[in-house]
Parts: sequence; C-alpha cells; structure tokens
Amino acid sequence: MFAFHVHKTDGAARLGELTTPHGSVDTPTFMPVGTQATVKAMRPADLRANGTDIILANTYHLMLRPGAERIAKLGGLHRFINWPHPILTDSGGFQVMSLSSLRKLSETGVTFRSHLDGAVVVLTPERAVEIQALLGADISMQLDECIKLPATPHELRRSVRLSAIWAERSKRAFESVPPGRALFGIVQGGDDPRLRVDSCRALVDIGFEGYAIGGLAVGEPQHVMLAMIDAVMPSLPTSCPRYLMGVGTPDDILEAVARGIDMFDCVMPTRNGRHGVAFTRFGAINLKNARHAEDPRPIDAESPCLAARDYPRAYLHHLIKANEILGAMLLTEVNVHYYQSLMRQTRAAIANRQFIEFCQSTRDSWARGESAAS
Amino acid sequence: MFAFHVHKTDGAARLGELTTPHGSVDTPTFMPVGTQATVKAMRPADLRANGTDIILANTYHLMLRPGAERIAKLGGLHRFINWPHPILTDSGGFQVMSLSSLRKLSETGVTFRSHLDGAVVVLTPERAVEIQALLGADISMQLDECIKLPATPHELRRSVRLSAIWAERSKRAFESVPPGRALFGIVQGGDDPRLRVDSCRALVDIGFEGYAIGGLAVGEPQHVMLAMIDAVMPSLPTSCPRYLMGVGTPDDILEAVARGIDMFDCVMPTRNGRHGVAFTRFGAINLKNARHAEDPRPIDAESPCLAARDYPRAYLHHLIKANEILGAMLLTEVNVHYYQSLMRQTRAAIANRQFIEFCQSTRDSWARGESAAS
Repeated sequence: MFAFHVHKTDGAARLGELTTPHGSVDTPTFMPVGTQATVKAMRPADLRANGTDIILANTYHLMLRPGAERIAKLGGLHRFINWPHPILTDSGGFQVMSLSSLRKLSETGVTFRSHLDGAVVVLTPERAVEIQALLGADISMQLDECIKLPATPHELRRSVRLSAIWAERSKRAFESVPPGRALFGIVQGGDDPRLRVDSCRALVDIGFEGYAIGGLAVGEPQHVMLAMIDAVMPSLPTSCPRYLMGVGTPDDILEAVARGIDMFDCVMPTRNGRHGVAFTRFGAINLKNARHAEDPRPIDAESPCLAARDYPRAYLHHLIKANEILGAMLLTEVNVHYYQSLMRQTRAAIANRQFIEFCQSTRDSWARGESAAS
Repeated sequence: MFAFHVHKTDGAARLGELTTPHGSVDTPTFMPVGTQATVKAMRPADLRANGTDIILANTYHLMLRPGAERIAKLGGLHRFINWPHPILTDSGGFQVMSLSSLRKLSETGVTFRSHLDGAVVVLTPERAVEIQALLGADISMQLDECIKLPATPHELRRSVRLSAIWAERSKRAFESVPPGRALFGIVQGGDDPRLRVDSCRALVDIGFEGYAIGGLAVGEPQHVMLAMIDAVMPSLPTSCPRYLMGVGTPDDILEAVARGIDMFDCVMPTRNGRHGVAFTRFGAINLKNARHAEDPRPIDAESPCLAARDYPRAYLHHLIKANEILGAMLLTEVNVHYYQSLMRQTRAAIANRQFIEFCQSTRDSWARGESAAS
C-alpha cells in the first residue's frame, strides 16, 4: 500500500520514506530515467548496487513500443525489465509535446503521430491512467499539457485550466486501478507564480497521493525554477511527497531539497555520461577534452565506485572518442553512483540537521575542482 | 616467463596450460576480441567472471588510436584497459588488408592509409613487433600477409614466401623485447595443403614459442578449413601451443580442438550478440525474430549466467529492436558465457578422455534445439 511519512526536517528540507507495492524509498530520492524500458547502458542489478531505489519509465515510449497491453500480458513492467523495485511512470504528456508530430490538442485528449512509424495515436487522461495501470506502475502521473516557455499569459491560463480538467478525469479513472498504487497530480503554470498557485490549489482540491511540479527544467534560468517552487510550496500538503519533474543538475537538486522537494528525475547523469561527462565531487569533468588523453589518473581514486576508481581518464577519453559502448557504460555508472551518493549524503545531512553545512561544503568542493585534489 | 605444457590428450585433443607474465591460461582457450582496447559492451571484471582467461587486442586499431607510444607511456595495455590478465595481440596484418585503403605492399612492409583520418602509416615486421612490445602483450604475433581467397597459386606462393621472410625478421626484432613474453609465427598458404606445409616448415625452422594458422575463417567452407588444419598438424611441434586465428562457431571450435588446436579468437560471440543472436546449448537463437516478441521465457532458465536466466526473451527482443545498449550488453554476456562454458566443458571432457562423447552430446543438444527443452 502506498504511504508517505516525513521522519525529520531541517529547515524546509525533509527526510522521508515512500512505501510502495514494490518496496520503500528513502527521500529525498533521485530516479534515473528508463526511457525505452531500460536506464540506458546499465543493468538493473548495477543500478541497485549504486544506490537506486526507484526508476522512472516513460509511458509515451512504452505505449508505442513494445505496447502497454503486451507488457501487461508479460506480467507487467517490473518483470519485463527485471527490476523488482519501485517504478514511477510519467503520463506521456511531455514526450507527446517534444517528440511526436502533427499533434491535435482538444479537451478530450491529444492526437499525434508516433515518432517511430507515423501511426496515429490518441492519448486521453483515461488512457494514460489505463496504460500506467497495465504497466503496473507503483506511482502514476496524471496526463498534463506541458507547453513551451516563453508562452503568452493566455496560453498559460488555457493550459493550466486544461491540466486541471484532465487531473480530475485522471483521478476518476484511477478509481478502477488496483489499490495500493498512487496517482500524482502535476502543477503547471509556466513561469507565472500566480498561475502556479491556482494550478496547485485546483489539484489539492481534487486530492492526490503526491504532487509534482511540471513544465520546469525546460531551459529557464535556475532562479525562475526556484521561484516557482517557492510560490507553490505553501499550497502543497506537508503530508504528501513533492516531486520536481525533470530536474536536474546536482546544484539544482540541493536548491530544491532546501525548499522541501522530495523526488527528482533527470536524464542528465545517463545522457551526459554517454556523451563523456562525469559528475564528481570535484564538479563535472568532460572526458572528451583532449587534456585527458594522457592522464593516467582515475576519475576519483577514493570512490567506492569501480568505474570511477579503476580506469585511467586517458582510457575513458579513448573509449568516448572511439564511440565504444564501454565508455557509455562506465560513465553512466560513475554518474548514477555520484547522483545516488549525493542523495544519500543529503539524507544523512538532513537527519543530522546539517543540511545547510552539507550544501556549503559540497559546493565548495565543486568550486575547488580537481586541482586541489591532484 | 612464457611456457606451455600439455597435461593430457584425448585423441588429438589436448588439455594444456599456457604460462605468461600476467598469469596462466588453461587450454583449449577462447580469446574474446578487444578491437579498440575494449571487448565491446563488456566490463573487464564481467569478462573474467564469465570465464575469460586471455583476450586478444588489435595492433592495427591501437597503433592508430590511441597510439602504441601513448599506451606505453600510460603503463601498457593491461593497465590502460584495467585487465591485469594475459593479452595476445595480433600483428595488424589482417586489418591492414581488410580495413585500410591505398595499400602498397613490398618486401620491406606495408604502407597504407588509416581508416580513421587517412594518415599514411608504414607497418614493417620490426615495427609490428615494436608496437606489440610497447603495448606489453604477453603473446605477440609476427606480421604476415593475409590474402583473400580464392587466390592464384602464384599469389599464394608469393605470400607464403613473403610471410616467411617477415617471420624471420620478426624473430630477430623480438630479441630486443623484454624476456618472458612470447612470439608466435603464422602459417599461411590459403587453401593449398602443400603450401601450408611449406609455410609451416619454414616457420618451425625459424623457431617460435607458438604457431598460428592464419588466413582461414575468411568465408571458405568448413571442410576446407579443417583440411588445412589436418595438413599442417603433423609438421607442428607437439610441445608448442597451436592457435587457429579468427575461428569460429562453436562447432568449428569442437572440430578444431579434435584436431589438436589449443587457442581460438573470434568476434562472433560479441558481434553476433550486438546483432541479437544468442549462442546457447540449444543452438543459436535470433532474438530479433518476431516470434520472441511475446515470449516470457528467459534464454536459458538453468544457466548460471544472469543475463541468460533473468530477462524475458520478449525484453531482449525489445532491447535489440529499440537499439538499446543494454541489449548489446546482455547478449554479449550471454555469448561470452556460453563460449567460455563450452571451453570449460571441453577441457573437462579431455581430462576425462570423453571428448568424442562430449562433442556428440553437445551437437545433439544443438540439433534438438529449444523445442525439446520448453
């Protein structure tokens, strides 16, 4: 059965625990993104070994290939991908906007063409809930309309209104989903703090197990994103988990945790890893850079992560330049390990009521960079 | 110090042990191919865990990128790639023929353009030995000319003569390599058994630590390949390891072991894995095939290899269709595990003098296929 408990707070930062049908998750938590039913370049057991408690799966991709009904027939997503731990699925709304063509939006739902084969697909709030139920998601997200910024006030208002209507329909559809699972609402409103509050109140009136802040991390400056979090926080129930969608850099995460966010997802550790960027306690290191070509040092000689500890930077540089799969594998692991160890340290710092000090020392270490360590 | 001992024989099949500066290798052995300083899609620790004792690295690729001098400066190939176990390097001859353009062959060596950047590179027998010494190979191969079949008798004779001259120069150059490492000669002669014997005798006169049979597995029928092995075997010293280059299918390996071959390398388990083919005790399974799209069974429920045991075929089918890195990772592991377990069983069968029975039961299992097992 889904549940959420806040065990401790330190300022606005919260140490909590999500309970789901597939196990519990300590919060604040970071969810690696498994777009096409795989967190790219990582085996599930290695995700787990590197501290991952919950992953995100993309409804849009899975509904198109291999299909939600097929996954249900095979026993659900957890069994399909060999990940017996919690899974959150997004609603598909964001990818419909960013990946598909020929979108037609109405109050009923959205009609689009698949980016894979051009097939016409209809996604309604009810179908989005149904797909996520077929996948067997521990946490489902309502279908929302995620519009691009900048947007006119008129567009923003229309999209907030539509998302609220869809939220209500999602909630109703979710009543026929097996019990124990959770449905989260998604706050929209672009960069307008008053619209954000309106959106938030409408969702709280409907009532969800958790609340997400959507439509951010789409290119806006960090201070805008943080201002939107600040705007909605007072209107969100303290008893429910708060999820900042698609965020972000390690610094974004610390800023958001400091404001009371409990959950994050982002492609950054996996995607940037495949492109040669390692996240470390010294900040980000771009291994594609020629200055690493003859560097015998590992990424971090003191890391418990073997990918960070046992391979020369010169080798990682070579693998990325040669477009070798092993480069993607090793740097993805380095980054998932770093993100999850940052979350673990974050939780420990909140437990010890030293979160501010932890943020300061972490930022100092990023700012000092590698020079101090070598 | 390099050494080779035959512990037991069963017919012509031999159970032996190679000793190298980086550890020993039980033979018959299979060497996965690490073309660009990585066995594609596998971490070194996973190669080892799946039974790999020695890998092959490609001189041609490494001399072009990242460069032999650079790898030497970084402490050698073993340290560069985080593989502290034995490494055999080829001489670059085969790839010069198959990958580079504008080759000019003379008795001195071969001049060619890099397939990466078009740079003009000269490879001589002496330089091939030097590169392999810089890499720190436990076993080096002489530079040879590997010509395409079919070839005229005149071409074949010329290439055998050239390879013998290069063998002699390689041997001389190898005298300045640090002691303990080994140099192997390569028997050429195309599909002409008499030329194969001539080539073999010339090499044995020069004297090498081991002898390879090259220029096969290039598209000829299996019976031609086996006839060439049969032709040269009587001329090879029983005290030295015998290496059949670029071979092959599981069946090729059993046939060659039965004729006294001790060492193999092939891209087949790794390349075919990336393309969706799993090697199993039921024969090869092409996971790309649509009939696997809804199959909940793993590749082999009784395999100790988690990649073969814990993932539905439907999922592997999906990963390969979606071109996901994890598909390449899992099927590469399935195949390396299968090849290495075949070699382990081969060694056990020779030890028990049951190699013929083992070959028969293995072939029966391949022929029965999956139907009998499901």
